[in-house]
Amino acid sequence: KKRVLVTGGAGFVGSHLVDRLMLMGHNVICLDNFFTGSKANVAHWIGHPNFELIRHDVIDPILVEVDQIYHLACPASPVHYQSNPVKTLKTGFFGTYNMLGLSKRVKARFLLASTSEIYGDPEEHPQKESYWGHVNCVGPRACYDEGKRVAETLAYSYHRQDNVDVRVARIFNTFGPRMNWNDGRVVSNFILQALKDEDLTIYGDGKSTRSFQYVHDLVDGLILLMNSDCKEPVNIGTQQEFTIDEFAKMVIDLAKKETGKCGSNLVYLPALEDDPQRRKPDNSRAKEQLNWEPKWNVVDGLAETVKYFKTQLEERV
Amino acid sequence: KKRVLVTGGAGFVGSHLVDRLMLMGHNVICLDNFFTGSKANVAHWIGHPNFELIRHDVIDPILVEVDQIYHLACPASPVHYQSNPVKTLKTGFFGTYNMLGLSKRVKARFLLASTSEIYGDPEEHPQKESYWGHVNCVGPRACYDEGKRVAETLAYSYHRQDNVDVRVARIFNTFGPRMNWNDGRVVSNFILQALKDEDLTIYGDGKSTRSFQYVHDLVDGLILLMNSDCKEPVNIGTQQEFTIDEFAKMVIDLAKKETGKCGSNLVYLPALEDDPQRRKPDNSRAKEQLNWEPKWNVVDGLAETVKYFKTQLEERV
Ligand SMILES: NC(=O)c1ccc[n+]([C@@H]2O[C@H](COP(=O)([O-])OP(=O)(O)OC[C@H]3O[C@@H](n4cnc5c(N)ncnc54)[C@H](O)[C@@H]3O)[C@@H](O)[C@H]2O)c1
Ligand SMILES: NC(=O)c1ccc[n+]([C@@H]2O[C@H](COP(=O)([O-])OP(=O)(O)OC[C@H]3O[C@@H](n4cnc5c(N)ncnc54)[C@H](O)[C@@H]3O)[C@@H](O)[C@H]2O)c1
Ligand SMILES: O=c1ccn([C@@H]2O[C@H](COP(=O)(O)OP(=O)(O)O)[C@@H](O)[C@H]2O)c(=O)[nH]1
Ligand SMILES: O=c1ccn([C@@H]2O[C@H](COP(=O)(O)OP(=O)(O)O)[C@@H](O)[C@H]2O)c(=O)[nH]1
Ligand SMILES: O=c1ccn([C@@H]2O[C@H](COP(=O)(O)OP(=O)(O)O)[C@@H](O)[C@H]2O)c(=O)[nH]1
Ligand SMILES: O=c1ccn([C@@H]2O[C@H](COP(=O)(O)OP(=O)(O)O)[C@@H](O)[C@H]2O)c(=O)[nH]1
Repeated sequence: KKRVLVTGGAGFVGSHLVDRLMLMGHNVICLDNFFTGSKANVAHWIGHPNFELIRHDVIDPILVEVDQIYHLACPASPVHYQSNPVKTLKTGFFGTYNMLGLSKRVKARFLLASTSEIYGDPEEHPQKESYWGHVNCVGPRACYDEGKRVAETLAYSYHRQDNVDVRVARIFNTFGPRMNWNDGRVVSNFILQALKDEDLTIYGDGKSTRSFQYVHDLVDGLILLMNSDCKEPVNIGTQQEFTIDEFAKMVIDLAKKETGKCGSNLVYLPALEDDPQRRKPDNSRAKEQLNWEPKWNVVDGLAETVKYFKTQLEERV
Repeated sequence: KKRVLVTGGAGFVGSHLVDRLMLMGHNVICLDNFFTGSKANVAHWIGHPNFELIRHDVIDPILVEVDQIYHLACPASPVHYQSNPVKTLKTGFFGTYNMLGLSKRVKARFLLASTSEIYGDPEEHPQKESYWGHVNCVGPRACYDEGKRVAETLAYSYHRQDNVDVRVARIFNTFGPRMNWNDGRVVSNFILQALKDEDLTIYGDGKSTRSFQYVHDLVDGLILLMNSDCKEPVNIGTQQEFTIDEFAKMVIDLAKKETGKCGSNLVYLPALEDDPQRRKPDNSRAKEQLNWEPKWNVVDGLAETVKYFKTQLEERV
């Protein structure tokens, strides 16, 4: 039984991680500023003796006594992280710096939620952890990408210099219930559009690809990584790669099954600047070092997510 | 006549920039923490009514009222920036953040001294400003490279968001008098070794290249850029590219001329990790937008630098 801090714990991934850690019997502190997360995501734990919720911005220092820190606090979707790039960079840098300082003081193990975005628009496919990436440091996505890259640099600098025990997870596109409703990510956009019988908005020609993993697999991976000896960065993502076109059709099919009808079509809008063309992890390191493999099939995960959004839509009406 | 702040003004490049700005009649504030710079570099201005020297670390906020900010404060040689990677990252991020906050408040124009290192170990040659670079964000050079990359991101984020007027100079290898004596850079190492009749230490096979510009050309470029309308990043460097072997031989020849004798040979040591293999700017943007071109020949510049180090050596004895 450990004292575990989860920053960004009221967000999409964070709240699933909190669930799992609570079920494992740990003492969990969930820290969040509720920028993109919400209390509703962890409401079911409020009042539980092992659970504590702190409203705090990771940009400011904080004193808590813990054994492990999962550092997830950071806006994660292009719409949100581009809405205030300076704030995103401050969260990326100051936030990580403060959590590393905390780890150093209390000798906690630190896990950084990094991202496949540090590979940018990759020229190597699939992406291995040894790949250095292809990122535009002055483009519109840079506040997020460079914020995460420098957060990795900072983590390993604290490791080398102050012996902080660090883990780095490079997370690939993840979806599931509790995804932020209006964060503009492709999964939430498509599902909401399909459920509302609106056309699915495809940016560009629909031929670019992503590999979508279900959130429960990611949570498995994060917990395995935290408790492993693997100090190198580890990709956590699935090999199931889809074009955005294929993915859109899958969502329409599932919406049809769920609602009995779905008249949505695909509409093609201008491509986004610097939008990565392809993304798929080489996840052999996670397999070898963590004995981790995604277990969920995308279609099953998507079906759960469609159900979740349908309930949400009904509650809003 | 402007009020100009030069951070890192007691350093190698900074002190030459201060000289020029003083000769142009500006009011100059030189800010430095003297980590790698020294008071001796600007001693000749102390007492001048247009000059002020402030001991300050850019990691902390500061209030001054100025019209232009040249932000150079940052350790620049691998030996120095790797000696405390966390501090280097803090200087890169907090320092730039504070100076941008200052620029925003007083509506000063801000120029970032960025670097060719943001291109990493480049796969495009020569390097254009549009090249995204090839940087290992978890390697030994990352504290400097990623610190500068994120500083650029921060600068353009302040520009887009708060309308801060920014200029970004991507500086390629520069040498000249007042280079730090013990910073381990190839120019100072080779010259000192040659003057002391020691063997010149070559890391790797001597076949990697650099393009070395003389500091006066760089100072021209920085001032032109500051006063231009060019908001995009601009490479400032020379097209004269040498292998480290060729460069070593040049230094030995010059040392011979200067001292009448030089028995140094080349010794080959193991290569450094992630050491860039080739580096040469495409400087057409500087030519077109600033009407800038390097005027100094490398051999002439080197001769001046050899003289400088010889005097320094004699004074130390
Ligand atoms: N979901 C993905 O596909 C994905 C992919 C790669 C990486 N990640 C990373 O995983 C983490 C979680 O992402 P998510 O998808 O759950 O996004 P999310 O937006 O749902 O969660 C982020 C949480 O952090 C909180 N937060 C943001 N800034 C904060 C600050 N300054 N102080 C305190 N809390 C703050 C938000 O309120 C939110 O609860 C992020 O670090 C993200 O970069 C996610
Ligand atoms: N010389 C080159 O070849 C070269 C190439 C590319 C970029 N640059 C950039 O140009 C700038 C100047 O480099 P240089 O070659 O003159 O190096 P330098 O080490 O001589 O100068 C850096 C100066 O900044 C000061 N400084 C460092 N950290 C500071 C802090 N936290 N607060 C206040 N002052 C601080 C140092 O004391 C020193 O005076 C740097 O930003 C460097 O990254 C230099
Ligand atoms: O329990 C702690 C210990 C440190 N920090 C913050 O973490 C950062 C880095 O701490 P470190 O000790 O490494 O840096 P220093 O303060 O020595 O520069 C600082 O802003 C601290 O305020 C924190 O928030 N909680
Ligand atoms: O309504 C949308 C939202 C996103 N996308 C595309 O889907 C892919 C994934 O986008 P998302 O924002 O979900 O994640 P990321 O780009 O960070 O992988 C990108 O190519 C987007 O351009 C799309 O076509 N329509
Ligand atoms: O004259 C000034 C104005 C700002 N800052 C610092 O610059 C940083 C960024 O300032 P900004 O106003 O952008 O940020 P905020 O304080 O609003 O987060 C802050 O740490 C300020 O303390 C400074 O050193 N001098
Ligand atoms: O004593 C030395 C110092 C440096 N170098 C090499 O010279 C090049 C330039 O190194 P420097 O540190 O001057 O600058 P940077 O690597 O930042 O361009 C690199 O390939 C170094 O490995 C060398 O061979 N001997």
